[in-house]
Amino acid sequence: MTNPVVVEVTRGAVVESAHRGAVAVYDADGGSVVEIGDTDRPVFPRSAVKAIQALPFVESGAADAYGFGEKELALACASHSGQPEHVELARAMLAKAGLDETALECGTHWPSSHDATVALARSGGSPNALHNNCSGKHSGFLCTCRHLGIDHRGYVKAGHQEQEMVREAMEAVTGQKHDADHRGTDGCSIPTYAVPLKSFAQGFARMATGQGLGPKRAAAAKRLLNACMAEPFLVSGTGRADVTLMQAAPGRIFVKTGAEGVYCAAVPELGLGVAIKCDDGAGRGAEVMVAAVLAKLLKSDTALAARLIEIAGPAIESRAGAKVGALRPTVALA
Amino acid sequence: MTNPVVVEVTRGAVVESAHRGAVAVYDADGGSVVEIGDTDRPVFPRSAVKAIQALPFVESGAADAYGFGEKELALACASHSGQPEHVELARAMLAKAGLDETALECGTHWPSSHDATVALARSGGSPNALHNNCSGKHSGFLCTCRHLGIDHRGYVKAGHQEQEMVREAMEAVTGQKHDADHRGTDGCSIPTYAVPLKSFAQGFARMATGQGLGPKRAAAAKRLLNACMAEPFLVSGTGRADVTLMQAAPGRIFVKTGAEGVYCAAVPELGLGVAIKCDDGAGRGAEVMVAAVLAKLLKSDTALAARLIEIAGPAIESRAGAKVGALRPTVALA
Repeated sequence: MTNPVVVEVTRGAVVESAHRGAVAVYDADGGSVVEIGDTDRPVFPRSAVKAIQALPFVESGAADAYGFGEKELALACASHSGQPEHVELARAMLAKAGLDETALECGTHWPSSHDATVALARSGGSPNALHNNCSGKHSGFLCTCRHLGIDHRGYVKAGHQEQEMVREAMEAVTGQKHDADHRGTDGCSIPTYAVPLKSFAQGFARMATGQGLGPKRAAAAKRLLNACMAEPFLVSGTGRADVTLMQAAPGRIFVKTGAEGVYCAAVPELGLGVAIKCDDGAGRGAEVMVAAVLAKLLKSDTALAARLIEIAGPAIESRAGAKVGALRPTVALA
Repeated sequence: MTNPVVVEVTRGAVVESAHRGAVAVYDADGGSVVEIGDTDRPVFPRSAVKAIQALPFVESGAADAYGFGEKELALACASHSGQPEHVELARAMLAKAGLDETALECGTHWPSSHDATVALARSGGSPNALHNNCSGKHSGFLCTCRHLGIDHRGYVKAGHQEQEMVREAMEAVTGQKHDADHRGTDGCSIPTYAVPLKSFAQGFARMATGQGLGPKRAAAAKRLLNACMAEPFLVSGTGRADVTLMQAAPGRIFVKTGAEGVYCAAVPELGLGVAIKCDDGAGRGAEVMVAAVLAKLLKSDTALAARLIEIAGPAIESRAGAKVGALRPTVALA
């Protein structure tokens, strides 16, 4: 099936580009609330499931053993912008486990934040693995290995005990087998598994409600989502959609972006999870989609819904700062 | 009509994302050679038509009056990466006309080249309008105004004499009315007009052959395309697809990217023009499309076609540099 056009990109009075995609909103029991497009198609969740991937970090006792609070838990779920606060917190997490950035196997890239890149270059610095947007997640992996006495070398590889714990958590939360046939390698070198989009929606409903997870896992899930909602900047970075969305309704909306146009989200008060894939992989499309879907789910709070609809319609500006177009959700999302 | 999937993005054995789009290949008389998807839909050509927009710069005598050669003509058609060579050449063009960067109305942004951004920041510098990827085109506009004795202030606005000359050239080359109903504002603040995709294909066949343009315009078109093919780096920047493609067949392929997934191209030896739109606006999709279409058109040169097919299948790498996926054209482009 061909997914519908869900986002239009306008310039003047003309639709210049368009994004297709799929949306699943589920409850923890697998009840479908919203279904747009093909939600059975396997999708790599990429970084949108970092909160699930962080479960072993909490469940193993590592996070408590090192005295970590909401800030460190949020960073363990982050795709951060490589701003100094992110880099220093990841460094501090590793230090607690007696490690430094040389233990990270996520690779190095300049900060995702353009301002942070400019500041780093101006200072004469160069990036290291701590600037990688996944360094918080990897710091969580490394702390887990150290706490459990596992040799951390090769911790990114499929089959390593750390990735087996992550895979078990992913399978339990999504209810889907994660097999080698649907395995890819993520940008940060760990395995990522393509499973039906809808299973991430149900999975995040479970994360938000604890239903179907067992008490220990339910408690860990709640701590992780609460940490992200309490510290949205640490999960993301200045000016980014995840921060804007979570700050629009503090403690009420969890969202997490993933590469290639993926979003996972949860609305704990409704007991619902959301999973989104923009077919072409565009982050800008997925951002409009998630904001529009959250506005729909939370429409009874008219002020919040209005704010979410505003977020779902960002302006496109010329280099001189004039508004020349916009993104907008289509009726398929209304 | 729904355009076909033309490009797939793989990770491991899974198709992670996909791009839809349309392709038109025409001769100068309006004969259709390749037609994929809806080529009648109006599309903003954005920067892909800079060579047409530069016609008044040559036809007015401005380029000759200031002693400009292929380098300056190439830069006038460029979406450059803001590397020092681009910036200094734009500065020199303006100086010939007694102007400097304060006359540019394109707005300011950091260099498109990440390396150039880092180098500029390391040197303690900040960008000005010369770093804008369109500064070469705007320098051409300003030189044209000065040569003709036109007040250059407001030269980016619809209705200014410079933009009227550009619009006349666009209408003549594409054979399409450029009216206010289909007008948008480009990123660099000048008007851009949405007309059927196929008319850009025919237009670039005219640019490459001179057919249907009249002798003076035909000569200017030939000079501009030849300048771009002679100086691909000045039209683009280090490592970018336009450079790679034009260097694959020096003097035989003209290509020019535009924002929101557009490409225009010409193959002078075949008398053909190409116009491409990736529906969702993705540059990566449009790059695969144009390389695959050029491979198809030039298949009788088996070595060149093989090189173009290679360019049409770039790898996707993890941050650690491992190949984890690829882009590839679908059978719709074969």
